Amino acid sequence: MDHRLKLLQRLAQPAATKIVLLVLDGVGDLRTAEQPHTALEKARLPNFDALARRSSLGRLVPVSRGITPGSGPGHLALFGYDPTLPETDIGRGVLEALGLGIDVRPGDVAARGNFATAGADGRLTDRRAGRLPTAECERLCAALNQRLAGRRFVDKGLAVEAEVFPGEAYRFVLMLRGEGLHPGVADTDPQQLGELPLAAREEEAAAATTAARVRAVVEVLEETIAAEPKANRVLLRGFSKTPSLPQLGDLYQIRCGAFAGYPLYRGVAGACGMEAVPCGKTFAEIVGVVEERWQDFDYFFLHVKQTDQAGEDGNFDAKVAVLESVDADLPRLLALQPDAIAVTGDHSTPAPMRAHSWHPVPLLIHSATCFVDDCRSFGESEAIGGAVGTIPARDLFGLLLAHAGRLQKFGA
Amino acid sequence: MDHRLKLLQRLAQPAATKIVLLVLDGVGDLRTAEQPHTALEKARLPNFDALARRSSLGRLVPVSRGITPGSGPGHLALFGYDPTLPETDIGRGVLEALGLGIDVRPGDVAARGNFATAGADGRLTDRRAGRLPTAECERLCAALNQRLAGRRFVDKGLAVEAEVFPGEAYRFVLMLRGEGLHPGVADTDPQQLGELPLAAREEEAAAATTAARVRAVVEVLEETIAAEPKANRVLLRGFSKTPSLPQLGDLYQIRCGAFAGYPLYRGVAGACGMEAVPCGKTFAEIVGVVEERWQDFDYFFLHVKQTDQAGEDGNFDAKVAVLESVDADLPRLLALQPDAIAVTGDHSTPAPMRAHSWHPVPLLIHSATCFVDDCRSFGESEAIGGAVGTIPARDLFGLLLAHAGRLQKFGA
Repeated sequence: MDHRLKLLQRLAQPAATKIVLLVLDGVGDLRTAEQPHTALEKARLPNFDALARRSSLGRLVPVSRGITPGSGPGHLALFGYDPTLPETDIGRGVLEALGLGIDVRPGDVAARGNFATAGADGRLTDRRAGRLPTAECERLCAALNQRLAGRRFVDKGLAVEAEVFPGEAYRFVLMLRGEGLHPGVADTDPQQLGELPLAAREEEAAAATTAARVRAVVEVLEETIAAEPKANRVLLRGFSKTPSLPQLGDLYQIRCGAFAGYPLYRGVAGACGMEAVPCGKTFAEIVGVVEERWQDFDYFFLHVKQTDQAGEDGNFDAKVAVLESVDADLPRLLALQPDAIAVTGDHSTPAPMRAHSWHPVPLLIHSATCFVDDCRSFGESEAIGGAVGTIPARDLFGLLLAHAGRLQKFGA
Repeated sequence: MDHRLKLLQRLAQPAATKIVLLVLDGVGDLRTAEQPHTALEKARLPNFDALARRSSLGRLVPVSRGITPGSGPGHLALFGYDPTLPETDIGRGVLEALGLGIDVRPGDVAARGNFATAGADGRLTDRRAGRLPTAECERLCAALNQRLAGRRFVDKGLAVEAEVFPGEAYRFVLMLRGEGLHPGVADTDPQQLGELPLAAREEEAAAATTAARVRAVVEVLEETIAAEPKANRVLLRGFSKTPSLPQLGDLYQIRCGAFAGYPLYRGVAGACGMEAVPCGKTFAEIVGVVEERWQDFDYFFLHVKQTDQAGEDGNFDAKVAVLESVDADLPRLLALQPDAIAVTGDHSTPAPMRAHSWHPVPLLIHSATCFVDDCRSFGESEAIGGAVGTIPARDLFGLLLAHAGRLQKFGA
């Protein structure tokens, strides 16, 4: 466990205070010659701006300078973990499973799967099986699960069961559950057309029996789909186990609820020890559920996805519109009178880049004990000069605990 | 290898993009009661200022707050290394050798030498031999090399050859090449007049045979110059080997060219895996060579020395004049359309201090994906409020890779 987490754990004390973290996914944006204002700067945000004038602003560096984070590392950092440490890493397979809402338990191994097409000689002609429609993917997974149901794959006396879960288009997740699983299995996707799919091989000796059982599972899967015109092979990548993260409740004596409409974010929060509360996808719906469950938690993680989606689409106006709609419902959240609230993102998704980026993300912290700085509105340029400064995202959790009176003095 | 380098190496991807790092050596300066503007702020820099208005500004802390770096650590940090790690340290002897343009190969041991004067009792009367003229130093070194040529110094069956290289005034470099060399030999300079020069002694057991051979070399050297009126002794310091740094090309899949008119900077860049391209000393000459070699590299390190020289001389007006002359040729560099360009220094050399200092150095980053902040000109005071913030110099390399689209996303 990293040094800072240990220190925070040592200083954490219970309190009757409520903390809210509102994550506007991918909120950070750019000013360029063509886009002279960011979405936050362009949007009319009377409620955010009024809050900013009573708050400290600053910026978060999600992972490390210049590093563009995926959603997993971006959120782990916001929850106080160092996502660059190996023990914090959430593997690709597990992340995909969490994104499908699959319950990944300690000991399970998950892999990302592609349906693919191979010719009569076994060589790959399409690594995505013609970008199969999702309905086809669902049909194939149902057929595969009929064959897998109740079947045990055994090597050296260790048994597992297997199940597949359809994703979008040609994607699926393979879940293995049972005895002695180790995630150190190499990808079976050769990444090139004209190649044979690879047999599952262990990357280290401890994964040998897992690899043997994966080969047996793949045999059943490919037998079942052998006659399919397109999806006649499977390729597997990113074998992984859920990381055993120190749980937030144990670290900080705090009950944490995750209010996120999308499974990936519920899953990552769950891996940190938060209770994932079922809720809708819009901010208005999310706030409604928070209102209902206000007595049940000390820490509320609210996740708004649409800012990121608009950024990924390169749709600046949509990003502005999402922000304005969140602003309209912000007073409902503030009416709950959280003792400390932070508003930020897990990374930037600048509309001109249509992708996640490494740029620092604006941050607002409000509490009775925040330093009210000179920032007049909530936005990237104002935040540069804010009282919080530009800090690693993983420092935010401790700052919020402090602002909510949940950390004792260090030393006498 | 440090954690951040490993992460960058893992994420680095090839791209058809060009990166320029323009180092204005010692560019950072002070504002004081007597000097109300820095050299950058005083100079007329229409091209830098226009670029600044389309860029992100910020500041680099060269090594660590309050630490004044030499040229070696200053540049290693700009190239992404942590110069405070022992494995990154370029010893004094090697640095001096690089500064003389000597090719220092793995296994070689270099030491800085002084010619010195001792009286009839052997005690030092002048540690710099009356600040010998450089021509005298060259004459003496030629005489010494005649005696050393072809001679092998052997201890415990391990043989080395020795050679001296004249520096400025009373300074020279001793190079040892051969078998089983270890740099752990203590300085022979007692640092005080009235003392006897010290015999070379090992600082650790592994360096014992090296120390024995150094003693034999010194005996030959001092025999040769025993009758000189002033330069009748040699003092040796800073025994060192070239560090085995992870090479930039291996780390980032990038071809790096160093365009520096002075050997020290070519040498440090070469130790990092850059190709040192022969070129002149003025910025105009350097840009001329960059233009010719634009297709040959992905990363271009350009080094302008004269800003530092003016600072060391306490010559504010000269520093201003150098900056203005660089500004005049900046459009030629920009006309090459680098995908990402940074302008900064390896440290500050404030004219009022006539020396390197620890103060943060202004930084400008321009690319299509930089955040255009509110800074209106390139200078120290503007840079305080820039979008990059005040960051460790060693984070710059990764930031430039990011701005040039050369880093994949971290995690999903």
